[in-house]
Amino acid sequence: MIEVLRLDHRPKRDARLTTHVALVSRAFGASKIYYSGQQDPSLENSIKKITKNWGGSFKIEYIKNPLKLLQTKRTIIHLTMYGLPIQKKISEIRKQRNLLIVVGGSKVPIQYYKLSNFNISIINQPHSEVSSLSILLHKYFKGKELSINFKNAKLKIIPQEQGKKLKS
Amino acid sequence: MIEVLRLDHRPKRDARLTTHVALVSRAFGASKIYYSGQQDPSLENSIKKITKNWGGSFKIEYIKNPLKLLQTKRTIIHLTMYGLPIQKKISEIRKQRNLLIVVGGSKVPIQYYKLSNFNISIINQPHSEVSSLSILLHKYFKGKELSINFKNAKLKIIPQEQGKKLKS
Repeated sequence: MIEVLRLDHRPKRDARLTTHVALVSRAFGASKIYYSGQQDPSLENSIKKITKNWGGSFKIEYIKNPLKLLQTKRTIIHLTMYGLPIQKKISEIRKQRNLLIVVGGSKVPIQYYKLSNFNISIINQPHSEVSSLSILLHKYFKGKELSINFKNAKLKIIPQEQGKKLKS
Repeated sequence: MIEVLRLDHRPKRDARLTTHVALVSRAFGASKIYYSGQQDPSLENSIKKITKNWGGSFKIEYIKNPLKLLQTKRTIIHLTMYGLPIQKKISEIRKQRNLLIVVGGSKVPIQYYKLSNFNISIINQPHSEVSSLSILLHKYFKGKELSINFKNAKLKIIPQEQGKKLKS
């Protein structure tokens, strides 16, 4: 089971980025996202709507005290550009089954670094929590996540060389 | 040479997403990003500042007529969730040397599908242009982009098991 925790969501500033973090979690095979910071019903609704239309059983849940989540029994992977390179740690991470992937907000308190089993960087350069999460999940699943079949989908894409084809 | 074209930038709505698209381009080994839509000096400055601090020679340029760029001699790869799966096309794409990767804005006109040599999906599900771009570059470079050395960097991270270490 893989779940994601997005820290410190600010509806005004982060609406679209947190949406993308949630959609990457879903599309790349995680089963749930928790988010902390400010509760955001519009974020929750848009993710629920996408799951309803595009299938699968992905969940989103607001959590007031995210540190509590880190104290449950699972392997915590904190994505940070200051961490150890993914390519050196991925085989060790692949042996873990029950993962919580922590994705930072504006500034991540030091406790998160300490409570995490792995502090992992996807390139020690500034880029995006969205790309970091996708690369981690892509490497964890060895590319198998690219062909997940989402059950009970109302909408389904028929891949095209040109143009768009949607089956509904 | 790999360059990226981000379509239809709207400063108010897309500021942070386009920034992330640009940072992923840079961190994952592209040499330049063009963007169309509305010109955004604050976007350009923030990318230039990051390149100045973190090294390399990444460029950003506003382009008024992006369709013109597609008519220059290079291989155009348009990232769209409606396209053919990356895993089926990556070996063909890896043979190309001079790439322009097109990353959509809100709604991409049909000409882009027609003028592209490849319309490629990273999973036929809604997620993010940021993750799609990172996965494409990661697969194109076979993971070698994870260890690029950015020249003339003022700031450099020393990867840590816990905490942050920055050399400047």
